[in-house]
Amino acid sequence: MIFRQLQDQASNTYTYFLADEKTKEGVVIDPVLENVERDFQLINHLGIKLLWILDTHVHADHITGSSMLKLKTGAKTGLGKATQVACVDHLFAEGEKIIFGQHLLQVIATPGHTNGCTTYYLDRDCVFTGDTLLIQGCGRTDFQEGSSEKLFSSVHDKLFILPDHVVVYPGHDYAGRTQSTIGEEKKSNPRLKTGTTLAQFVEIMKNLKLDYPKQMDRALPANLSCGRI
Amino acid sequence: MIFRQLQDQASNTYTYFLADEKTKEGVVIDPVLENVERDFQLINHLGIKLLWILDTHVHADHITGSSMLKLKTGAKTGLGKATQVACVDHLFAEGEKIIFGQHLLQVIATPGHTNGCTTYYLDRDCVFTGDTLLIQGCGRTDFQEGSSEKLFSSVHDKLFILPDHVVVYPGHDYAGRTQSTIGEEKKSNPRLKTGTTLAQFVEIMKNLKLDYPKQMDRALPANLSCGRI
Repeated sequence: MIFRQLQDQASNTYTYFLADEKTKEGVVIDPVLENVERDFQLINHLGIKLLWILDTHVHADHITGSSMLKLKTGAKTGLGKATQVACVDHLFAEGEKIIFGQHLLQVIATPGHTNGCTTYYLDRDCVFTGDTLLIQGCGRTDFQEGSSEKLFSSVHDKLFILPDHVVVYPGHDYAGRTQSTIGEEKKSNPRLKTGTTLAQFVEIMKNLKLDYPKQMDRALPANLSCGRI
Repeated sequence: MIFRQLQDQASNTYTYFLADEKTKEGVVIDPVLENVERDFQLINHLGIKLLWILDTHVHADHITGSSMLKLKTGAKTGLGKATQVACVDHLFAEGEKIIFGQHLLQVIATPGHTNGCTTYYLDRDCVFTGDTLLIQGCGRTDFQEGSSEKLFSSVHDKLFILPDHVVVYPGHDYAGRTQSTIGEEKKSNPRLKTGTTLAQFVEIMKNLKLDYPKQMDRALPANLSCGRI
């Protein structure tokens, strides 16, 4: 299959293009507004017929490129069902399937970082986890309906039950890492590894003392309008 | 197999870890000194038995992590044969094979960016091209024994003859892209795509008007000593 992982260097966001090698039908996950030209060039070079523009959640650190890419390609936009966003074409519920060529993304609702956070599970090979599960970390849970309890449950009950070899493609990484596996995170994620209790996790998340996100006041209203600024 | 692509955010350098899923024997390509702790943590998490620390060339923009990783792991260091570096454990000649578990890297001499530039060809699936072939670009040829003529020949006669599906993992990307394919670069690399003549390429490279590399005076002497500073 056609697979491309791309990085937004300002926000360390990862964007993913997935497409069927034969039919060229494809999807993009978490495009960033500032990179739409780069991404559109890639779509053209690879001949991708974009069907879906998916976001893993309503981002607080960058503006989604979804509306701009929709304008350029005619693809539909999608988000998780628990998201309160009216402008999106489809809100995907747990268990829904997104088909492109011979490939299939399965929708897994993974609330916690935000209530509408969604993981996309590709062909039982890899998961695009957004900010739910990061490499050796996870998304913060202190704003946007965040809930440490829900995130803990999403990771342990919905992601860590997947096979160990499943590759984890996160929404960000701030140390230059591009991928992990379920097995690796179960073994060594300092916040969430197997054996960590909910109480321990809640305590870790309570004590992170994170700064107010720099882009939130700009990005959040824009993303609630599907990236139209 | 175990595959990890990692980025050095200061220099946009890509480091690659490759290891056999069963035996855990593996190699690293182009480690960066400042990231050795991160990389060593990954080696431990994944249980990699590092056999070789390979550089694609003597870098001018960052200091190699090869000596430091050798100290930590006991692995051997390797570079291309045309490199004038005495401290390295082995200088690989064209056609040599590097075996780890069930996997094989084939050494392809691809001079041009520097005279000792080497491409590592993995299992006939992907190439680690260093600065010879970049995504939609190539390494500069205006210092360190650089030669536009040699780079053109390396790309056209040694890389563009590989199957179109072969994935290209470059030494850098400055736009957040992580991979390409031989087919894509043959089709759309603005400097090197099929049909470009040597004279056109030489002219393009002559007119790039690039700045003097910021890190060169620090990185080059260090790398000629295998990253010992």
